[in-house]
Amino acid sequence: MKPRVLALCGGVGGAKLALGLTHVVPAEALAILVNTGDDFEHLGLHISPDVDTVTYTLGGISNAAQGWGIEGESWAFMDQLRRLGGEDWFQLGDRDLALHVERTRRLRAGESLTAVTADVSARLGVAARILPMSDDPIRTEVDTDEGLLPFQRYFVGRRAEPAMRAIHYRGAETAIPNETAMAALSDPALEAVILCPSNPWLSIAPLLAMPDLRAALAATTAPVVAVAPIVAGQAIKGPTAKLMREMGLAVSADTVAHYYHGLIDGYMLDTADAELGETIEAQGIAVNIGPTVMTDLPSRITLAERAIRFAGTLPNSRDAPCPGH
Amino acid sequence: MKPRVLALCGGVGGAKLALGLTHVVPAEALAILVNTGDDFEHLGLHISPDVDTVTYTLGGISNAAQGWGIEGESWAFMDQLRRLGGEDWFQLGDRDLALHVERTRRLRAGESLTAVTADVSARLGVAARILPMSDDPIRTEVDTDEGLLPFQRYFVGRRAEPAMRAIHYRGAETAIPNETAMAALSDPALEAVILCPSNPWLSIAPLLAMPDLRAALAATTAPVVAVAPIVAGQAIKGPTAKLMREMGLAVSADTVAHYYHGLIDGYMLDTADAELGETIEAQGIAVNIGPTVMTDLPSRITLAERAIRFAGTLPNSRDAPCPGH
Repeated sequence: MKPRVLALCGGVGGAKLALGLTHVVPAEALAILVNTGDDFEHLGLHISPDVDTVTYTLGGISNAAQGWGIEGESWAFMDQLRRLGGEDWFQLGDRDLALHVERTRRLRAGESLTAVTADVSARLGVAARILPMSDDPIRTEVDTDEGLLPFQRYFVGRRAEPAMRAIHYRGAETAIPNETAMAALSDPALEAVILCPSNPWLSIAPLLAMPDLRAALAATTAPVVAVAPIVAGQAIKGPTAKLMREMGLAVSADTVAHYYHGLIDGYMLDTADAELGETIEAQGIAVNIGPTVMTDLPSRITLAERAIRFAGTLPNSRDAPCPGH
Repeated sequence: MKPRVLALCGGVGGAKLALGLTHVVPAEALAILVNTGDDFEHLGLHISPDVDTVTYTLGGISNAAQGWGIEGESWAFMDQLRRLGGEDWFQLGDRDLALHVERTRRLRAGESLTAVTADVSARLGVAARILPMSDDPIRTEVDTDEGLLPFQRYFVGRRAEPAMRAIHYRGAETAIPNETAMAALSDPALEAVILCPSNPWLSIAPLLAMPDLRAALAATTAPVVAVAPIVAGQAIKGPTAKLMREMGLAVSADTVAHYYHGLIDGYMLDTADAELGETIEAQGIAVNIGPTVMTDLPSRITLAERAIRFAGTLPNSRDAPCPGH
């Protein structure tokens, strides 16, 4: 059956709301479309950091404090790799490694990332559908004052320290978006699309860089709701604020609403940013105000409930039939 | 500098004597030529079981009780791999895995197995040279009553239980033997070649299946000494005895001496087999009798010392100049 709720997300921040959604939406009705622009080949292994974070989070084995990786992970592999002179800038835990080795083997044997992700998440007890945004390679590259860096080299290897000048989503132009997500977006029965509070430029933009997906999102009859990833002028996590400054943008929740303009019907603002509501509504975007910071499971569930309820109140204003037709 | 002592070996049994040799022969004068017929691709990784056993043994990190793998190894990777439905018939420890991942990466990048082995063993503190028998793939296959099995499928996957009908060393005919070993064998300064007490048909035969190596061994001016892998009609370890029965051979140390005939000058028999000495000497092979079972480090060193001393007493009878020349 086609999903009735489709969430778009990246890794850590988005996975929190995705987890909340699994408590609110029946598993068979929920699909989570995940950024693969962070994917890379490392030590000969195919690593999908955002897909893995969502999988581990929904599978209940993620390291909640850290946000990525597996709870109670061990690091014997990394210790020995270091001893052998191997590259050690990207941490791969012993358990985590099993997924990378097994996925790489299956991809080489001809399976799709979508198929492997479906099987792995099922084996880890995830009932909702986790959908990589595409089976085609899309690779985010960051043009910085230290030169062009593949995403993980920039983000992990250089801790997002070099100043960003531009971001490229290599391969997005020609990539074929996940077909389950595309079918859902064109399904009149789709009830809501949720843009999770992930980094708009690093986690959501790679999805929107696929022309067919962007068009399908713009054309969907379902209400589209985004949750602000900026609260009181600060990013909850990660380099979003730094990135916005480097792009010459005001670090404010309404900058993100503006970035999503034309794609979203509703925007969830944190109570701390209530005063931004009016200017956002003036752009034709409905606004919902309340707590958006997810510190624990109950707050994730509450935010997910509110997002679904908010979406239920929204007419899809973007492509309502023109009065004359 | 070229090695003055060259040892040929497989994994567990051979590695014990190789370790003894490192205590007796100066590191720069010792080279150990190791079987790679057991190598295989598993989970997309290049695994070299015998080379690794020798490397870990000489590096002082091997699991002595088990004979293979690393002491104090952890198994989180295997646990998770099993959970993901991956192949779990071949055990890969978390630390051990670092070598397989790093080696596979380097081989794919164009380095040779010889180069990677040299670097890895140096990083693990091994001073003697560990030489894979060839950089070309040689793959031992066992023709059994369950059909043709790649070596590790037979040996580990099926615990050497199927009855063996024939053994093939795929690729050996055309493989180029390790060049350091070849240079050593043709060097008049070479003082001894030691055939370690490895399984003759599974561990030493793949080396001898390379025509150039076999010819160089037959032609070397250095004395060649083999240590019996059979004591009192039993194999110390592994499936040697079972294999010999399946080939219709008497499970006896003199069967192995006969198998090596034409290649060896001396043969070290265990005290328990002293009565076999005469028939072996009748084949023109000098015999040395003493304890050959290596239960601890001192016994390995003692056997290594005796092997070197025994070699020193041997004229190379095989290719002595004919009286008329």
